[in-house]
Amino acid sequence: MEEKEISKAVISRLPRYFRYLGELKEEGVEKISSQELSNRMKVTASQIRQDLNNFGGFGQQGYGYNVSYLYEEIGNILGLNRKHSMVLIGAGNLGGALAGYENFKNLGFDMKAVFDIDSKKIGKDIKGIPIMHTDRMSSFIKENRIDIAVIAIPKTAAVGIVDELLSCGIKAIWNYSHVDFDVPEDVIVENVHLSESLMRLSYNINRYDQEHK
Amino acid sequence: MEEKEISKAVISRLPRYFRYLGELKEEGVEKISSQELSNRMKVTASQIRQDLNNFGGFGQQGYGYNVSYLYEEIGNILGLNRKHSMVLIGAGNLGGALAGYENFKNLGFDMKAVFDIDSKKIGKDIKGIPIMHTDRMSSFIKENRIDIAVIAIPKTAAVGIVDELLSCGIKAIWNYSHVDFDVPEDVIVENVHLSESLMRLSYNINRYDQEHK
Repeated sequence: MEEKEISKAVISRLPRYFRYLGELKEEGVEKISSQELSNRMKVTASQIRQDLNNFGGFGQQGYGYNVSYLYEEIGNILGLNRKHSMVLIGAGNLGGALAGYENFKNLGFDMKAVFDIDSKKIGKDIKGIPIMHTDRMSSFIKENRIDIAVIAIPKTAAVGIVDELLSCGIKAIWNYSHVDFDVPEDVIVENVHLSESLMRLSYNINRYDQEHK
Repeated sequence: MEEKEISKAVISRLPRYFRYLGELKEEGVEKISSQELSNRMKVTASQIRQDLNNFGGFGQQGYGYNVSYLYEEIGNILGLNRKHSMVLIGAGNLGGALAGYENFKNLGFDMKAVFDIDSKKIGKDIKGIPIMHTDRMSSFIKENRIDIAVIAIPKTAAVGIVDELLSCGIKAIWNYSHVDFDVPEDVIVENVHLSESLMRLSYNINRYDQEHK
């Protein structure tokens, strides 16, 4: 399948389809119509048909979509048909939450080590994942051919860490620090700026209040 | 200022402008040209001029933008000129990280209490914020006129909690559970689905690999 044919807008909706299809699979549902999926996902049935038509010849009239097949196809496009190895930088509260997330593991993301500079934490573990000193980060990444670095440290420390990550060949960063990194074009960064999400919430509260006062 | 005049696309970029302007303020910068801001933010200067023109007559040719004024104006539009009170449901790792975030407090979001059902946690606190039994949640929310509920519990528990939150008048939910809630139109939900962010990263890694193999 040529992935370039699928529009960016459709791609941005795939993780949500993947989540719903995963739930249907868990429930033992084998087939679902666009109308049933529409009711669940609060998206119009016609949007669903348009989106899923990108994936070719399933979803026949009067039959519905094959849940397992669609789940697997969308998983492939999202790159979930391979394992990814990760390291986490920052064993604070947020790092602890990220390292311990069963759901990431279930999606094939394997956290191999956590790095921190706090001597009280080094030598311990988070759900079996060892916490090591940041001094050991570069050699660990090279030896274990790590794919993804997850950054959960304050922004003042984050920029220096990213330079080090780039120099040992990291090509993908999942960034929870409140800073945008300046990286080469072949490095992929996905930012999770929680404060910005909170501001969007605040904006919507404010707008609602303005419109209804 | 009429907020409806500003497009959705501009609004979605405001939190990022706000973050950069806040950093400039901290650094003591009083004025900045669109070109300088462009260099920092990796956005074209013309995009910046277009976006910030929405906020009226500052940013004169050869003068630049007044950092404090723009920071405050954008803050007002984002609803950050008022305080918001929050409660958190779920004192796990993620909850601990969210409750302890100084940055949210600095933006005017005041976490008043954390609710959990784990008897080992109840009566303790997270950075001074008391952890109470979920039994007390409804009365606490009503008595303290809480604005925002932050949900950081497994999805199996989350749906029941949301019903309870709605019945005690909560109108804004910041949701970290992997489930979409079915809420009335006057309730605002901002979802943070971390797995979906990880899938976007994975998709981009996969696409890059496909294009460069």
